[in-house]
Amino acid sequence: MLQQLFSPSVQHTLDLVGIFVFAISGALLAVRKNFDVFGIAVLAEVTALGGGVFRDLVIGAVPPAAFTDLGYFLTPFLAALLVFFLHPQVERIQFGVNVFDAAGLGLFCVTGTVKAYDYGLGLTSSVALGLGSAVGGGVLRDVLANETPSLLRWDRDLYAVPAIVGATMVAVCIRYDALGPFTSGLAVVTAFVLRLLAMRYHWRAPRAWNRRSNVREE
Amino acid sequence: MLQQLFSPSVQHTLDLVGIFVFAISGALLAVRKNFDVFGIAVLAEVTALGGGVFRDLVIGAVPPAAFTDLGYFLTPFLAALLVFFLHPQVERIQFGVNVFDAAGLGLFCVTGTVKAYDYGLGLTSSVALGLGSAVGGGVLRDVLANETPSLLRWDRDLYAVPAIVGATMVAVCIRYDALGPFTSGLAVVTAFVLRLLAMRYHWRAPRAWNRRSNVREE
Amino acid sequence: MLQQLFSPSVQHTLDLVGIFVFAISGALLAVRKNFDVFGIAVLAEVTALGGGVFRDLVIGAVPPAAFTDLGYFLTPFLAALLVFFLHPQVERIQFGVNVFDAAGLGLFCVTGTVKAYDYGLGLTSSVALGLGSAVGGGVLRDVLANETPSLLRWDRDLYAVPAIVGATMVAVCIRYDALGPFTSGLAVVTAFVLRLLAMRYHWRAPRAWNRRSNVREE
Repeated sequence: MLQQLFSPSVQHTLDLVGIFVFAISGALLAVRKNFDVFGIAVLAEVTALGGGVFRDLVIGAVPPAAFTDLGYFLTPFLAALLVFFLHPQVERIQFGVNVFDAAGLGLFCVTGTVKAYDYGLGLTSSVALGLGSAVGGGVLRDVLANETPSLLRWDRDLYAVPAIVGATMVAVCIRYDALGPFTSGLAVVTAFVLRLLAMRYHWRAPRAWNRRSNVREE
Repeated sequence: MLQQLFSPSVQHTLDLVGIFVFAISGALLAVRKNFDVFGIAVLAEVTALGGGVFRDLVIGAVPPAAFTDLGYFLTPFLAALLVFFLHPQVERIQFGVNVFDAAGLGLFCVTGTVKAYDYGLGLTSSVALGLGSAVGGGVLRDVLANETPSLLRWDRDLYAVPAIVGATMVAVCIRYDALGPFTSGLAVVTAFVLRLLAMRYHWRAPRAWNRRSNVREE
Repeated sequence: MLQQLFSPSVQHTLDLVGIFVFAISGALLAVRKNFDVFGIAVLAEVTALGGGVFRDLVIGAVPPAAFTDLGYFLTPFLAALLVFFLHPQVERIQFGVNVFDAAGLGLFCVTGTVKAYDYGLGLTSSVALGLGSAVGGGVLRDVLANETPSLLRWDRDLYAVPAIVGATMVAVCIRYDALGPFTSGLAVVTAFVLRLLAMRYHWRAPRAWNRRSNVREE
């Protein structure tokens, strides 16, 4: 097993922060979809924990951490309550939520990659699963809300690419035996900053070449 | 391991009844969505067994019971056949179907919680997974039918709350070492009756406070 | 464990061909849904590998083959790239794609059934899981694209039935101890030819009897 990237308590606190902001994004979508208080809580839970549960099922780490660590399970409820009572205020600070969401993305792509590698996956698969644990919750959120996953849509700012870059940096560090608190922190920050830049400058990925429709939709 | 709640054959019969009524609800939705006979069977299977498969994957009980007990697997086909040939009649007794569905909900939230606890989950997580196994099939049904899960919609009578109450009663009984055929039966009946009352009096959960739109939609 | 059906390298090559054509179908849908290059890659991966990952999670073969065999993981990217640059040409040979897709269907229903049986499932459950691994990726593809799964729609040519026939032939051969390269190859070819015939003659499955609406929609 790789050494702990950060001290356990720091790591745990970071995890909870990431879970919290992901849960906020789920709860806000639930409010927009007019779901009731229970639907808000479910969507908060699924968004925050879905990616990690998928990762843990794939690597055989059952029961998944979401079902063994009470803090992981209860944090999304806190987010759901907050949104339930204060959602206009939460929406007003949407930019702040997005910044935290970017931080969660950076953190989870790194910890997901490390955990997958710890459980014996190859480097490429670990990157894929790191990405999956970072973005999986958001995809589940959109599927449950009966919307096309924003991850896949061309008219959304880059979301997966920052996570791929962060996860790949971790894999390269593992490959050259250079993974430590500094390098993994650097990977988190790189993914975080890339996501912020993508939001700021509306970076988007290209769609397929030679689409039939030549209408300028941009 | 906790003692069996009921004698094995009683338990098994109850499981099959619950699976059957859940399958009916899936098959009826498939007919309404204009699916073919095969789509009806698939939706019946997924609705009846999806929640339990999710629970078993999470606790590591693989292969899930749905794939080892032939009765579990074949019962939904029976429901699909019935709906295929007789669906106007089945729809006419929609109320009866709803009553059985409420019974299935009560039963599965209790047995799901007990099984999760048996596999080593904490009490809170066991409640969450008991709820998940009771309502998971219905969520999968709606996702496959490309509809917003009725579990999450504010304009549906309470469905999850009765299951949460039943699962919580089980957890409290386990905590105080009082789980037996009587107390678990009481939890099943409580969830069942609560769901019936919710349907009868159209109990609903509140939506987020201070929604922008102040139009009275109720 | 059953003997290998084909020599390992032949088996592996066939798997990769099946994965490739399934990935093409996912990538083409992504282009039609106007997803960006990343969405195309994700949908290619999910379509090609989703069914097998589901099968492996159910039988407890973790991590799933999709995460341990680099070829399985990289092949869908090749398909995504091809579609990204050449999708009008790929669409023009849609018929060819459909033929390969039929081949993938035949192959995966057979190998899925065999693998499920190898991991201790009963014959009926093995058939169900063989079917699930053959069609599961396509269902996930449609769910992520926010469309009603084409598997379930009555207005699509038979897709599941050929796979069920192929998987059942394998189960019967196992039952009578007659599974070998010839009989399993026969099952693959039968499913393949049935699917081709279903496309050629637009075979469809019936919908529920006595639908309320008597409008002739055919």
